Amino acid sequence: MLKGRQDAFGRALADWYEGKRPLIAFERDDGYIDCSGGTGSYFAPYRDWPAPEKRALRLVRGRVLDIGCGAGRHCLYLQQQGFDVTGIDNSPLAVRVCRARGVRHVRAMAAAELSVRRLRTLGGRFDTVLMMANNFGLFGSPARARRMLLRFLGITNPGARIIASTLDPYASKRPEHTSYHRWNRRRGRPGGQARIRARYRDYATPWFDYLFVSRQELEGILDSTGWELGRAVKEPGGRYIAVIERTR
Amino acid sequence: MLKGRQDAFGRALADWYEGKRPLIAFERDDGYIDCSGGTGSYFAPYRDWPAPEKRALRLVRGRVLDIGCGAGRHCLYLQQQGFDVTGIDNSPLAVRVCRARGVRHVRAMAAAELSVRRLRTLGGRFDTVLMMANNFGLFGSPARARRMLLRFLGITNPGARIIASTLDPYASKRPEHTSYHRWNRRRGRPGGQARIRARYRDYATPWFDYLFVSRQELEGILDSTGWELGRAVKEPGGRYIAVIERTR
Repeated sequence: MLKGRQDAFGRALADWYEGKRPLIAFERDDGYIDCSGGTGSYFAPYRDWPAPEKRALRLVRGRVLDIGCGAGRHCLYLQQQGFDVTGIDNSPLAVRVCRARGVRHVRAMAAAELSVRRLRTLGGRFDTVLMMANNFGLFGSPARARRMLLRFLGITNPGARIIASTLDPYASKRPEHTSYHRWNRRRGRPGGQARIRARYRDYATPWFDYLFVSRQELEGILDSTGWELGRAVKEPGGRYIAVIERTR
Repeated sequence: MLKGRQDAFGRALADWYEGKRPLIAFERDDGYIDCSGGTGSYFAPYRDWPAPEKRALRLVRGRVLDIGCGAGRHCLYLQQQGFDVTGIDNSPLAVRVCRARGVRHVRAMAAAELSVRRLRTLGGRFDTVLMMANNFGLFGSPARARRMLLRFLGITNPGARIIASTLDPYASKRPEHTSYHRWNRRRGRPGGQARIRARYRDYATPWFDYLFVSRQELEGILDSTGWELGRAVKEPGGRYIAVIERTR
């Protein structure tokens, strides 16, 4: 869980909620920086969401776990639709914003902390796991993704699904990205395993790995985990929402 | 002069000029980061400039040197008003944007490179030196400011003036700034001598000192340099435009 000045992301969400218009800088370990992610998108109401996102959310069923729930936009919508939804985020300030906005069940917890032992805190097993807005990336690396997918078997019911959005990193032909993918492969990592941190004012998260995968890489990760790729809802620019079904 | 991937600032200006809407990140050496400076302001037409800036520009006379001319907005305006104006910027890409936009006299040159020897390249001595949009900061430090002010005597005519905008750093009570000022003083620097760099995509300028001064600090710097503070045109938020007159 992020502490104090590490909570750059939550600080920006809290500042937005208080009426400021902050910009978060995402820094990559090759020196690339991107400030273009307007914090406002985390607060966008349902009517402003992209069509593929709305389409993917129609596949939600049963008890829902929203991993990396941010400012709570998916939790709030699903709650309103009558779903029993619980959000987790490793940013305590984001969780505070969620609560202020009316999210009923939300905990400051990293995805990696999810386990059968924590189920009681979370109110029981889930039928849908949401990882929206590129949050498939929170799996971090293929090895970690596989470990967490196996652990997800313990916190979900048979027939559960994961709805996870990601980006095919190889869809971009921009040299600053293709050269990063090459560098990653040279150091023995998948091309799309980005080492990044978020910065805002004098706040900075620790460096962490955020994983972007092609469909082929995704299928490789899912192999023999008890999960398999169902449909994939395409979004523009190489992004897609993977609907991952529990097979056992 | 900035070279290749150092020219973060010019790359952003060039991208804006080509229709993108880039955001530059300004990073300070204590870890503070700010992406809020929209690149568009460098292209703002005269009608959109703040009133104090318009007022200060009425004090321009004779041959004009615009230091840190950016995308050339002041050069273009003054040129249109019939002034003989020359811009310099240490960003080759910014200079290219200036030329594309119609600035007639512009050179890729750092302020520190200004000297009597370079006068021929610049077309002769100047009557007004412009350092707008916080560009007093390009003096870097009080000692460097004093050396450059003395050198400015060699490249200006008697009766010349410097019109320079800055920010009283102590006007802000925000803890991330007041604590930086304290840290600066502890390491033997003026509170407002910010060590910063600009970053954009995979471009980053080298770290450099950018000096913000209170009026009192400014008067201390000017003492016995052959320059003295005339009027100061106030802007909001502690910013002001100093009109500095040559006394000999």
